[in-house]
Amino acid sequence: MLTSPSQPHTPSSERVTVKRLAARGVYDPEEIHGILDAGFICHVAFAVEGQPRVLPTAYVRVGDEVYLHGSPSNQMLRSLVASPEACVCVTHVDGLVLARSAFHHSINYRSVVLFGPAREVDDTERKLAALHALTNRIIPGRWNEVRTPNEAELKGTLVIAIRIAEASAKVRNAPPKDDEEDYALPVWAGVVPLSVVAAQPVRDPRLPPDIPQPAHVTAYLKNHEP
Amino acid sequence: MLTSPSQPHTPSSERVTVKRLAARGVYDPEEIHGILDAGFICHVAFAVEGQPRVLPTAYVRVGDEVYLHGSPSNQMLRSLVASPEACVCVTHVDGLVLARSAFHHSINYRSVVLFGPAREVDDTERKLAALHALTNRIIPGRWNEVRTPNEAELKGTLVIAIRIAEASAKVRNAPPKDDEEDYALPVWAGVVPLSVVAAQPVRDPRLPPDIPQPAHVTAYLKNHEP
Repeated sequence: MLTSPSQPHTPSSERVTVKRLAARGVYDPEEIHGILDAGFICHVAFAVEGQPRVLPTAYVRVGDEVYLHGSPSNQMLRSLVASPEACVCVTHVDGLVLARSAFHHSINYRSVVLFGPAREVDDTERKLAALHALTNRIIPGRWNEVRTPNEAELKGTLVIAIRIAEASAKVRNAPPKDDEEDYALPVWAGVVPLSVVAAQPVRDPRLPPDIPQPAHVTAYLKNHEP
Repeated sequence: MLTSPSQPHTPSSERVTVKRLAARGVYDPEEIHGILDAGFICHVAFAVEGQPRVLPTAYVRVGDEVYLHGSPSNQMLRSLVASPEACVCVTHVDGLVLARSAFHHSINYRSVVLFGPAREVDDTERKLAALHALTNRIIPGRWNEVRTPNEAELKGTLVIAIRIAEASAKVRNAPPKDDEEDYALPVWAGVVPLSVVAAQPVRDPRLPPDIPQPAHVTAYLKNHEP
């Protein structure tokens, strides 16, 4: 459905125009936000002495911004804030696409690449709001039941906001597509769906036995069962 | 186990030395290879007009090299071959670490960052071997049952090899670690394990009903069941 050929949205620039397999390009902000909101680990490109590097980190989207956080001395975060622009990628792997020919094997996936300027969030209320949003994005309801950050912890956390100035998504969500003559081959073809699921929680060894599993954890398990 | 403080291996340079939470750094090549071999989607950093970018792509490790492939006009692959060095990251998310304080929430994960020079693989036999390795890494036994690439397909596929010149892994695999005074709080704490699982395959709509699900697909499902 995301690969509708009658896509009404168009890319905002050349660099966010999907070039390889252009029909997989998605430029609808709502669909892009949906893909971002389905995850919490992104990969961030940054430069150290001119050389590109990539690292994973947690993120949350709020409005047209993506928030990252870490230690105040985090090299990646410092580099992003000092650069004119950040580049962030989010990828979900949805299935193995097994075609009749090796060449047409593929992956079903949803990915977003976004570009935009990064700034440090130094306002305490906004830092708290970003961490609140991140925690409750990863596991809804969690923030409300834990000890919230104190002043020292907030001072010890660097939060940055990346404005989503430009973004595009690339989506494949379809059966194999083989060369016409290969459909006659006696080779099994199809899609093996993949998803991320939760297993039963492992209680902290130091948790008193009389503290029951809270409703927000039970709800999370329900939403991530196989 | 991977975060053993008596780690006998040391980082080969400053840039592959894990700085944030240094105890999570892993420099044992076998453990690094194990993390690489547990996945098939990596994120690659590259530069376009000096600006860092990141994109996802499939990979396979063979020996001390990582192979990527794509269209001969793929901008990312061309950029890597033209650069002195590539940077590739592989990340597995293994669980949500739910602490008593918001500040100590974390993720259990295994990630590798590697650096090395990239070269085009233009020898036909080596290209075939790389694609063979990739296909059978993603789903063991698949290559042997499909139509292998013909000359035109091989010409239409750019394969690059990145030598793993330097690499490090970062691993967290532990219960929450709270501030000592927070252990008295009546807050549930523990780890919610996450994993990637396969669902029942969706047969290609054009697959004749008399072609049964092959043993390699059944074995894959067995190895990726919830």
